[in-house]
Amino acid sequence: MIEPDSLLARTLAAIVPVDEDARAAAEARQLTLTKPPGSLGRLETLGNQLSAISGQCPPPAPAPALVGVFAGDHGVQAGQRVSPWPQDVSRQMAANIALGGAAVSVLARNSGADVRVFDVGLLAPVDLDAVRDVNVRRGTDDFTEGPAMSIADAVAGLEVGIRAADEAYAQGYRCLVMGEVGIGNTTPAAALISVFTGADVATVTGRGAGADDETLARKIGAIRKGIEVNAATPERPVAALAGVGGLEHAAMAGYVLGGAAHRLPVIVDGVIACSAALVADGLAPAASGYLIGGHNGVEAGIAVALRHLRLDPVVALDLRLGEGSGAVTVLPIVRGAAAILSEMATFDSAGVSGRE
Amino acid sequence: MIEPDSLLARTLAAIVPVDEDARAAAEARQLTLTKPPGSLGRLETLGNQLSAISGQCPPPAPAPALVGVFAGDHGVQAGQRVSPWPQDVSRQMAANIALGGAAVSVLARNSGADVRVFDVGLLAPVDLDAVRDVNVRRGTDDFTEGPAMSIADAVAGLEVGIRAADEAYAQGYRCLVMGEVGIGNTTPAAALISVFTGADVATVTGRGAGADDETLARKIGAIRKGIEVNAATPERPVAALAGVGGLEHAAMAGYVLGGAAHRLPVIVDGVIACSAALVADGLAPAASGYLIGGHNGVEAGIAVALRHLRLDPVVALDLRLGEGSGAVTVLPIVRGAAAILSEMATFDSAGVSGRE
Repeated sequence: MIEPDSLLARTLAAIVPVDEDARAAAEARQLTLTKPPGSLGRLETLGNQLSAISGQCPPPAPAPALVGVFAGDHGVQAGQRVSPWPQDVSRQMAANIALGGAAVSVLARNSGADVRVFDVGLLAPVDLDAVRDVNVRRGTDDFTEGPAMSIADAVAGLEVGIRAADEAYAQGYRCLVMGEVGIGNTTPAAALISVFTGADVATVTGRGAGADDETLARKIGAIRKGIEVNAATPERPVAALAGVGGLEHAAMAGYVLGGAAHRLPVIVDGVIACSAALVADGLAPAASGYLIGGHNGVEAGIAVALRHLRLDPVVALDLRLGEGSGAVTVLPIVRGAAAILSEMATFDSAGVSGRE
Repeated sequence: MIEPDSLLARTLAAIVPVDEDARAAAEARQLTLTKPPGSLGRLETLGNQLSAISGQCPPPAPAPALVGVFAGDHGVQAGQRVSPWPQDVSRQMAANIALGGAAVSVLARNSGADVRVFDVGLLAPVDLDAVRDVNVRRGTDDFTEGPAMSIADAVAGLEVGIRAADEAYAQGYRCLVMGEVGIGNTTPAAALISVFTGADVATVTGRGAGADDETLARKIGAIRKGIEVNAATPERPVAALAGVGGLEHAAMAGYVLGGAAHRLPVIVDGVIACSAALVADGLAPAASGYLIGGHNGVEAGIAVALRHLRLDPVVALDLRLGEGSGAVTVLPIVRGAAAILSEMATFDSAGVSGRE
């Protein structure tokens, strides 16, 4: 199913586990810094993870950062109306993000990150130079009636994300942030989370951007049917992605794989990013060591996915917007955790006495 | 007790409640921005509070920010050994902070904030230009045997903080962050929290920077005795501060009052800052509207104080260092909340369709 020597195959082969020796060196260094042991809590474990990711202690600054925003449309929305928003909003919001007016655009500027928008699966093109046209197909098919897309399209979507990560690395970016837009895309996300974690569909399916009770029930029914019709299982990750996923989900999974292959931290937030991270984990279990759980969103399924990936989200701000808004919000905290290890004085260097 | 026409009296008179009309305008504006209603969660309530604080919608950027770090020593440490660290560490850490090597120094650079260190009550002077010498007295007295300081000294400490806020405002700072250093200073903090909230001493007293069981028991006993000996009550806030407080606690309370008088947001983190905020609230209840709960620290007493002040901390990172490290860590999130209101596109301006 994965062509030998394809970009996907080469990327998977390049992913190595994070460096536990570097993590141990960072843990030891924390004890020499001018603070009581462990007193920086989550900032310490985060900094130690950045050492494990980079293989260096202290870790290099996870900067500059690039928010990759992947946009797609969904046959299950067209067929089953799983969201109350019209599908054209995917295209409109992709443009809004690229032009700097969306929440993720504002929060990225505030966090010192750049944003790059990719049309990987929108129904209609965005007529803006600022949106990269890497469209694989104009929306997926309704997965309640068959696969959302072909295996070849799923691989093409994965490779869009890998190329985005490769380009970011070549341009000097040293931290990747996962972002997305796509009306209806919490439906394939919940389907993927159910498939990859084994959790029941009802427990991982939420209201997305405002589904009412009736819509939520229709959404759950559609997901159950999609998983059954496509016989999606975690043993065949690309087939599961093709069966019940979406093109932005595919590209985000590729973005994770590409980031992990380059030993970059990848910040995850939201139910779509979590579902894509599960796909990446299914293809290359070592990739999840490169993931930083950004924000503990309120959408059902996030907590289940984070637990499966053994990720501890940095903050919880009751966000339920998606776009990568939570991930980019925590970016300064991630940078701060690296700075602690590289910039703090030691008891010796600062001439500070220890406890008696 | 408070001299009419003193700096303290004039500052208290200048504090007005936050502007609820501006908060309502911000709440209305949030609904026009390109996102589902309420989907930015805590970032929305924070932005709305910044409107209430400034009286403007959208709010001005809470930048630049100044971390005021107030340093003091404590007679209760000299007399009762409530912390395992030698007292000279207060002076050593004040120097380390001013020279840029402490956690708060590193995190402030990372968050784009400046740091200014004030010796308000250290036992011995710091021989560095970068530490402001505004010393009121060389350490407090042991409050288990009488008041920690005189009423006049407590007022002088409050006015150090007010002047620090006045100077920051005049220099163009538009956000204040509370910081401190002082070996043993969680003991007066717990005493003040017990006095101002009415909570039992044992429930608000924690291990500070590493007290063992025996030290913790001694600490609780010392606080009970101090509150009794000094007959500290919330009805007489300055007397309570003089009785069982500390000079950095006094200056931090003044920093809050000065910030509130200039209608600036003041970010609170840690048990010392929380106790100082309670003193400020006791002197001017309207001041607490200007407070932003930064970080939900693990030290006992923080949750009790935040609840009393009706503050909802932005993050929880298991920090227990003090210095203002948690408050400065959330500063980019606070700036982001303001940016959302001032920079996001509206559905109209971006041509994005509403839900169907």
